[in-house]
Amino acid sequence: MDTNLSVVLHAQGDLRLEERPIPEPGPNDVLLRMHSVGICGSDVHYWQNGRIGDFVVKQPMVLGHEAAGTVVKVGSAVRHLSVGDRVAVEPGVPRDMDEFFKSGRYNLSPSIFFCATPPDDGNLCRYYKHSANFCYKLPDNVTMEEGALIEPLSVGIHACRRAGVSLGTTVLVCGSGPIGLVCLLVAKAMGASLVAITDLSSERLKMAKQLGADFPLVVAKEDTPQEVAHRVEGMLGSQPHVTIECTGAESSMQTAIYVTRSGGVVVLVGLGAEMASVPLVNAAVREVDIRGVFRYCNTWPMAISMLSSGKVNVKPLVTHRFPLEEAVQAFETTRRGQGVKVMLKCDQDDQEL
Amino acid sequence: MDTNLSVVLHAQGDLRLEERPIPEPGPNDVLLRMHSVGICGSDVHYWQNGRIGDFVVKQPMVLGHEAAGTVVKVGSAVRHLSVGDRVAVEPGVPRDMDEFFKSGRYNLSPSIFFCATPPDDGNLCRYYKHSANFCYKLPDNVTMEEGALIEPLSVGIHACRRAGVSLGTTVLVCGSGPIGLVCLLVAKAMGASLVAITDLSSERLKMAKQLGADFPLVVAKEDTPQEVAHRVEGMLGSQPHVTIECTGAESSMQTAIYVTRSGGVVVLVGLGAEMASVPLVNAAVREVDIRGVFRYCNTWPMAISMLSSGKVNVKPLVTHRFPLEEAVQAFETTRRGQGVKVMLKCDQDDQEL
Amino acid sequence: MDTNLSVVLHAQGDLRLEERPIPEPGPNDVLLRMHSVGICGSDVHYWQNGRIGDFVVKQPMVLGHEAAGTVVKVGSAVRHLSVGDRVAVEPGVPRDMDEFFKSGRYNLSPSIFFCATPPDDGNLCRYYKHSANFCYKLPDNVTMEEGALIEPLSVGIHACRRAGVSLGTTVLVCGSGPIGLVCLLVAKAMGASLVAITDLSSERLKMAKQLGADFPLVVAKEDTPQEVAHRVEGMLGSQPHVTIECTGAESSMQTAIYVTRSGGVVVLVGLGAEMASVPLVNAAVREVDIRGVFRYCNTWPMAISMLSSGKVNVKPLVTHRFPLEEAVQAFETTRRGQGVKVMLKCDQDDQEL
Amino acid sequence: MDTNLSVVLHAQGDLRLEERPIPEPGPNDVLLRMHSVGICGSDVHYWQNGRIGDFVVKQPMVLGHEAAGTVVKVGSAVRHLSVGDRVAVEPGVPRDMDEFFKSGRYNLSPSIFFCATPPDDGNLCRYYKHSANFCYKLPDNVTMEEGALIEPLSVGIHACRRAGVSLGTTVLVCGSGPIGLVCLLVAKAMGASLVAITDLSSERLKMAKQLGADFPLVVAKEDTPQEVAHRVEGMLGSQPHVTIECTGAESSMQTAIYVTRSGGVVVLVGLGAEMASVPLVNAAVREVDIRGVFRYCNTWPMAISMLSSGKVNVKPLVTHRFPLEEAVQAFETTRRGQGVKVMLKCDQDDQEL
Repeated sequence: MDTNLSVVLHAQGDLRLEERPIPEPGPNDVLLRMHSVGICGSDVHYWQNGRIGDFVVKQPMVLGHEAAGTVVKVGSAVRHLSVGDRVAVEPGVPRDMDEFFKSGRYNLSPSIFFCATPPDDGNLCRYYKHSANFCYKLPDNVTMEEGALIEPLSVGIHACRRAGVSLGTTVLVCGSGPIGLVCLLVAKAMGASLVAITDLSSERLKMAKQLGADFPLVVAKEDTPQEVAHRVEGMLGSQPHVTIECTGAESSMQTAIYVTRSGGVVVLVGLGAEMASVPLVNAAVREVDIRGVFRYCNTWPMAISMLSSGKVNVKPLVTHRFPLEEAVQAFETTRRGQGVKVMLKCDQDDQEL
Repeated sequence: MDTNLSVVLHAQGDLRLEERPIPEPGPNDVLLRMHSVGICGSDVHYWQNGRIGDFVVKQPMVLGHEAAGTVVKVGSAVRHLSVGDRVAVEPGVPRDMDEFFKSGRYNLSPSIFFCATPPDDGNLCRYYKHSANFCYKLPDNVTMEEGALIEPLSVGIHACRRAGVSLGTTVLVCGSGPIGLVCLLVAKAMGASLVAITDLSSERLKMAKQLGADFPLVVAKEDTPQEVAHRVEGMLGSQPHVTIECTGAESSMQTAIYVTRSGGVVVLVGLGAEMASVPLVNAAVREVDIRGVFRYCNTWPMAISMLSSGKVNVKPLVTHRFPLEEAVQAFETTRRGQGVKVMLKCDQDDQEL
Repeated sequence: MDTNLSVVLHAQGDLRLEERPIPEPGPNDVLLRMHSVGICGSDVHYWQNGRIGDFVVKQPMVLGHEAAGTVVKVGSAVRHLSVGDRVAVEPGVPRDMDEFFKSGRYNLSPSIFFCATPPDDGNLCRYYKHSANFCYKLPDNVTMEEGALIEPLSVGIHACRRAGVSLGTTVLVCGSGPIGLVCLLVAKAMGASLVAITDLSSERLKMAKQLGADFPLVVAKEDTPQEVAHRVEGMLGSQPHVTIECTGAESSMQTAIYVTRSGGVVVLVGLGAEMASVPLVNAAVREVDIRGVFRYCNTWPMAISMLSSGKVNVKPLVTHRFPLEEAVQAFETTRRGQGVKVMLKCDQDDQEL
Repeated sequence: MDTNLSVVLHAQGDLRLEERPIPEPGPNDVLLRMHSVGICGSDVHYWQNGRIGDFVVKQPMVLGHEAAGTVVKVGSAVRHLSVGDRVAVEPGVPRDMDEFFKSGRYNLSPSIFFCATPPDDGNLCRYYKHSANFCYKLPDNVTMEEGALIEPLSVGIHACRRAGVSLGTTVLVCGSGPIGLVCLLVAKAMGASLVAITDLSSERLKMAKQLGADFPLVVAKEDTPQEVAHRVEGMLGSQPHVTIECTGAESSMQTAIYVTRSGGVVVLVGLGAEMASVPLVNAAVREVDIRGVFRYCNTWPMAISMLSSGKVNVKPLVTHRFPLEEAVQAFETTRRGQGVKVMLKCDQDDQEL
């Protein structure tokens, strides 16, 4: 086998391309030749800040967790995968069979392994080993890039599922970045009748419009939450059943509460400051539930099913591609907020989609 | 006002077109000039058999309950509707504020009024009064026929909602008549990734295919339930999460249980003989839930939302149209199983869709 | 019939006992001779402040909404009640058949009638008429005072139901006033294994202990939310699945979020300032849901069932009783925070429990 | 260490006490010195019939799966248990991280290990190794026998949870054997207001009465399902919200459907013949859901919590005790239907409760 070029974050601001040993899969693992790995905002955040909340980069860590690759070696106990299988990688692997795992909410398990969350290495590299139970075989009609995009798509699935989006639900999505866009796509696929989406940038809303948003709305920093809520209600014809907040901005969280219909749900996807000042009484007396999401669980099989059947089209999300060797330029592109999703092509012999 | 030509069932086999008085709306009612009314299998069943289960036609009853019309008179206490409004009619109106109504399941209220269920008159006539609370204003971009089709569509919505169809759900629909077809449409709109559908007639499956069924499957009366289950599993690639049984045939109910994935749901929409012999142990030890549906509740607003936003297209379901004066021929057409949905055009001055 | 002595709030601070006409029940109403009516904190709040949030006392209003009485007159359309029936009164009566009512959440209906919420009169008087559909017959083994206590008990039922309390749930209740105590009682009756309860006053916690609290905890204003959370976790042996916040204090809401187990639920019952500063990120990334309650719906029948079967004992909650004539003293007692529940005895001929 | 006396079923009717090697725990296992193991009806059924459904005893198998013991050896990877810990054993251990396990319904995993289900050995022996993740430490105030009884109690918990028993629910339990009795206990602990329970034997109903049943009802084989339904409705004052069928008899399943309130739930716990003839139309049009249970999942922690807090008292269920050496007599006692639960005491040095 060849060498294992990897994108390693050594410390805040210190991102390097370096060779690492090719790992040996354990009995329940598979070794993957990575093909396509998307760059997530959190990757850039670790690079720029060296931490996210309590997760601090204290030792060199491989970045990347939106990934698809090909099985090149199979652990002795693995039965459902074979060499040559193309797989999407679910980056979170629970380590302990605790109450969360046993009850189907393994994303909440405090000891979970998660790619590119310190101290766990990610998969922005040539070769990567992963628990076979969290690698999912892709059908022939799903591309590697679609496989990598299942990770952000999963955030949208989990958010819309927690929100209870269903037939005829009206939805407001706050924020039109990659996560806002996947929430939009998933909400539509789950039967939402009308989706409004906001952003500070009219540029970003263009993509939202292309992806099916019924009402893109440019907001300004000086707009009050009540004003934005009022405009959204006017566009939709009534208050949305569900608001999915993807910005983390305090004013947007306030908008989310004011705008949501009594008995509805606000889902918090975007994360902001530790403390937020919000109109909790308004939410409480109208029984507007506030629900957070932490990553996702049990989304890969249904995501593959949706991609394979053509119910969701994530392909337009990829706006930039770089070979792995140009990872730093790729990270720069994401940092500057250009395009939507930047994809790194990790396989020298196959740079296709 | 003119006369009120009505389609009245006097007794088993005795269907007449006759003039009835134009009713006077009470304070909470509206008077409607009927525009489009679909013929349902139950209308034909009453005509041919004089009864459905415990509901027996003992006195002349106007048929019809899939209806849309225009408000021509408004009761004194009605605030949300005005003369000229185009509305879809929800045929069930709860009479008592009992535990079912208070808890949002008014369809289960035993004293509910229901159009064309003895002894309550339906709306296959020129003029019909109805509780304004159960008339829903149609947006300009929803046709009267679409409004009338909300009734069968509601059966599909209620069935899919009871089944818990969501993103990536795989579904088997048993039976490709009008109700099977609306279940197919709704399942797709709620995010089902793959839908298989069965019927004895390959003719009827053609429409299913056109409406988006992934796997139409012709079955024969001599197929065993296990055989059909096996073929469905083969087509879908795995057992469906959900089976919606729309035929009422005992063998089809058996298939539904055998085929459904452990932890899944069988919804019974079709009604057959009072007693059915089914593999309950198989269902029980695999925790396959068996859920019935009785009509629907809380479906009109979301159905209108879906139709208006173009998420569901019911227009192809209407295969025949007759003016109200030719109601008997229309009933004959339905009785012979021709086409899918036969629509009666009740307004002499407007026979449009 | 005799006169109708009523407790009328004319304006902030202006509480009067005065004669009012005995009302005439409409066709769907019953006229009640009131027997026992509890004083709620909100009654006192209207008296002291003339308003609660947007609800302002602009014209004289009869107070009282925790009530039981005897049917003395029956509207023409009422079938399920007769003269002499002892009934508990659900004070909220939806006026419009809107989406909230139709879907079983009538408490969220914006146009709902509600006793002693301006401008709607309450039932702290000798004679009161009410919608018969919201009067519930009491079995012989349920006393009038128990009937009146169904109102505060309903807040506890609705809160615990929204929280999803079930077998083995561990619960923290913040605040040991009347509402905290009913939440405690209901949580235990729904299967909670351990209930901790906090209060600033050790005196109030004594009653909580008597009513079955496993861990009463005195907290001080200077305790940080994290400290309180830490102590509660220590007492329970782990973080509670559910926290029911009944104080409305910002620091207590913060405690509620910090202390609740990942994947758990915080229910907001107490109402404080319009804006609250809370650790929303902490809640979001641990998927701790925040749910409010607005009054209750669909609780009276189950409450009667619980009282009749002896599963819940609310009798100890009543610590003071006054005849209706001494209403002002009774309000003074509640205002001073003495005891738990003050009951007014409205029937001159029957001052029993 | 001493020898490992075990209760081994060699083939239908061939039950032997024999020495087996003491197993060596793997890295994720613990070795237990067994203390108390209850005899289940299924153990007796395997002994008498050599099979249950598709599970056939083809090679010698140790019986027993209702067990508690003491940790005597700890696998190298086990962190949460230590030598000397008293633990209750959950007999089902999923082998594959399949969709069922990942989504919290591991009891449905087709490849699950389960004590005393062919070909997996049970724990009716002196020494037994088990996955440490499925051994739960008992608090000091929970006895070993209570620990063993968590297994049948779990069936009751899972059944009542699937039924949605909550505050004020009225329940019918069909059958007053050990499983019917634990369903009764759990239903009461979850807030059921009234529980009726049937049996052919008035003797067995005595225990039900002692354990808190509100209405014990002797039924006769010649009673029609409708008659029994009518009597139950009369006793409860209305149809039960929930029926838990524990007999597996076809007529009792029919009763369960007829008697349950519209919108309610029938849970099938008892298993009978493969095919059952039941009034499915009656269930369907009243939206009475039919749900099976397969064992249980996620019940041990909450069961321990309930036992420790004294919310459920299972001690009266144990009516007979035998030392392990007298296992055959113990099985005979169960086979003859004497008493409720027969407990085998496996530890020669500690035959306490």
